[in-house]
Amino acid sequence: MDPVNVIILAVGSELLTPFHQDTNSLYLTRRLNDLGLDVSEKIIVGDEFENLGKAFRKAREEADLIFVTGGLGPTDDDRTREAVSSVLKRPLEFREDILRTIEERFLRRGKTMPAANRKQAEVIRGAEVLPNSAGTAPGLWIEDEAKIIVLLPGPPPELQSIFETQVRTRLAGRERAFLVRRVLKTSGLTESEVESLIEGLYPRDPARRLTILASPGQIELHVSAFSGVSAAEAERQADALTSELGRRLGPAVFSADGSDLETVVGRLLSARKETVAVAESCTGGLVCRRLTRIPGSSTYFREGFVTYANQAKIDRLGVPARTIESFGAVSPETAAAMAEGVRHVAGADYGLAVTGIAGPSGGTAEKPVGLVFCAVADAEATRLEHSLFLGDRTRVQDQSSQKVLDMLRRFLEEKSSR
Amino acid sequence: MDPVNVIILAVGSELLTPFHQDTNSLYLTRRLNDLGLDVSEKIIVGDEFENLGKAFRKAREEADLIFVTGGLGPTDDDRTREAVSSVLKRPLEFREDILRTIEERFLRRGKTMPAANRKQAEVIRGAEVLPNSAGTAPGLWIEDEAKIIVLLPGPPPELQSIFETQVRTRLAGRERAFLVRRVLKTSGLTESEVESLIEGLYPRDPARRLTILASPGQIELHVSAFSGVSAAEAERQADALTSELGRRLGPAVFSADGSDLETVVGRLLSARKETVAVAESCTGGLVCRRLTRIPGSSTYFREGFVTYANQAKIDRLGVPARTIESFGAVSPETAAAMAEGVRHVAGADYGLAVTGIAGPSGGTAEKPVGLVFCAVADAEATRLEHSLFLGDRTRVQDQSSQKVLDMLRRFLEEKSSR
Repeated sequence: MDPVNVIILAVGSELLTPFHQDTNSLYLTRRLNDLGLDVSEKIIVGDEFENLGKAFRKAREEADLIFVTGGLGPTDDDRTREAVSSVLKRPLEFREDILRTIEERFLRRGKTMPAANRKQAEVIRGAEVLPNSAGTAPGLWIEDEAKIIVLLPGPPPELQSIFETQVRTRLAGRERAFLVRRVLKTSGLTESEVESLIEGLYPRDPARRLTILASPGQIELHVSAFSGVSAAEAERQADALTSELGRRLGPAVFSADGSDLETVVGRLLSARKETVAVAESCTGGLVCRRLTRIPGSSTYFREGFVTYANQAKIDRLGVPARTIESFGAVSPETAAAMAEGVRHVAGADYGLAVTGIAGPSGGTAEKPVGLVFCAVADAEATRLEHSLFLGDRTRVQDQSSQKVLDMLRRFLEEKSSR
Repeated sequence: MDPVNVIILAVGSELLTPFHQDTNSLYLTRRLNDLGLDVSEKIIVGDEFENLGKAFRKAREEADLIFVTGGLGPTDDDRTREAVSSVLKRPLEFREDILRTIEERFLRRGKTMPAANRKQAEVIRGAEVLPNSAGTAPGLWIEDEAKIIVLLPGPPPELQSIFETQVRTRLAGRERAFLVRRVLKTSGLTESEVESLIEGLYPRDPARRLTILASPGQIELHVSAFSGVSAAEAERQADALTSELGRRLGPAVFSADGSDLETVVGRLLSARKETVAVAESCTGGLVCRRLTRIPGSSTYFREGFVTYANQAKIDRLGVPARTIESFGAVSPETAAAMAEGVRHVAGADYGLAVTGIAGPSGGTAEKPVGLVFCAVADAEATRLEHSLFLGDRTRVQDQSSQKVLDMLRRFLEEKSSR
């Protein structure tokens, strides 16, 4: 019971510039996954007839199910119909009924159909027409030597409406497998630390897959499981692996439902009906921004201070001048005083503070670029951590914000589990 | 003078899920375009050894220059080196010097290198090693039967730093056509306003292209010009169109060199040796975050306050309680008092303020979600604007931050041109 081999071929020269992404394939992937179908390759080509034909020929050699998106428009550089027709050696046939539908669409908007749209009424011999209620170019469904080829227009609303109304039902029942995905997100561990903690858990059977994805301060584990029997069986398989991963990784796991760290922190604060205030130096507002990005954050986010200058740390947060004089603005002592100070000043349950050297300048031998102190204070205690982050200014800022939010997350989880 | 055929092959099973996009190819395309190289195809495959090998084999048949990104990490599912080695029939060779570099990287952070990272010291026979200063996996440059194959690590900062420092110079001089791009960035106009201002300027000859790219609060115009003759000729073509566009769009253009708004604002403030302080309500730290993302911003960014609560606006910024009582926290009067207050409190030359309703809740018939007041104060005057932004919370926040930064930009430009 092999999984169906699916390839998405996106057509459009704009997709080969620095300015545009193919987003249709994300939508198609989500919908295909729901039907138990996995995508094995995505190919993006320009509008040139020859490249397009070559890419389609290759896709047809590999895949059982091919989606070709884009290039069905009325202009000269829309060549998908012709290219597929030529590779399949099936001629294009003009369909009077489709032309009338297109003409009527223009008429309803008080316009006359431009001559260029005429070619959208051409159909590859033997194809089923997938009417397009959101635009002029119909989709095409072609069954060819046990393979299925689906041509869909590029504009997302048109592609999606054709998929929802006509492709999904045609595919349902053809799936040979059920596919389930789970995502675990962790923070506070490096990729290699995660790797060594989960050693031996890489599944050996092809029905389960595990992928690790690293970004600054966050490692994600993506689990997928197939079953030829039922969705429930695929879920059981995925859950077994996910819970073993969770057991090994322990408190480093902050989410198993795709939520990001600021959402999890917000959920914990809301559940405990507690509030937070933030004092930032080197992150310059990023921690506040992440917390307040979340709808409803005004109930738990009390206030934030971006205090670069020493005097601001003293005046706004009540950091003692002698603390900064004795230990420096980038020191555990100052971080602690900032966290305690902002908590007090803002009247919040928790105070967060970040102070460090984000770079590119300002580093010394003793306090290099990337040195960051994070602190979390509640009424009883203040937790401190120092880190030496690598990377450019933005990367140091990203990792610092992740660090302090993760400290608060762990603090809240520990308190909640007591 | 045929253009070089370039294919980008992105490796990573996460790129075949609905959750992740390949963004490295956008960066690579931009940089390759700068060198006069166009990308003819992009292929995205998962981590499975067999699929990866097949896709690389196909890419090698078509292209003269192949970028393979991702799959160079330390984990079991990082198979790019092995797959390329197998297709090229060149064995992997272990390099003691690379291992030492990786070990030292861990040591600098006070850690021991996990055994898994050892395989990152394996090099395809005959490849040049492209050292990675931002991570552990070095890139590889392979010349094979008149083709060039470049392997780059997947994390964007690592890929970008290797490209900038080592790939770009190796590629320069190999280009066979000349391509020049120019980007004009504007703010304060809608896409249709830009459209109608530049009517008639869309180039008709295929050697010049104009693309409009809209994002919240910012419309970009991308001009590209090809020449088979010389870079100077392509530049002349691009510049002629760009300057006519600039003339039509006037002060809405804030950058012609790709710089973003916060960079332009920072440059203006630095040139005038002036400082800014920020008071944010509904943007929750985003304005501060954008300003402080820029290296060197500590010289002109004075201080920031994220004041959600009314009391915080009163206590921190000196907004009169009766202003909030009479007009509400979301009002031109409060915005002005916030901007003037933060300027005064922080001792800055300019005070910026944003107050509004980012949603999704909190809107009323009179003050709906999306209503935002922005203010910019200097010693002599306070400028105020109100906007009604569409979209979800993040989109309202993005547009608001863009608005207030654009107000400051125009203010500074006017003063500088007096």
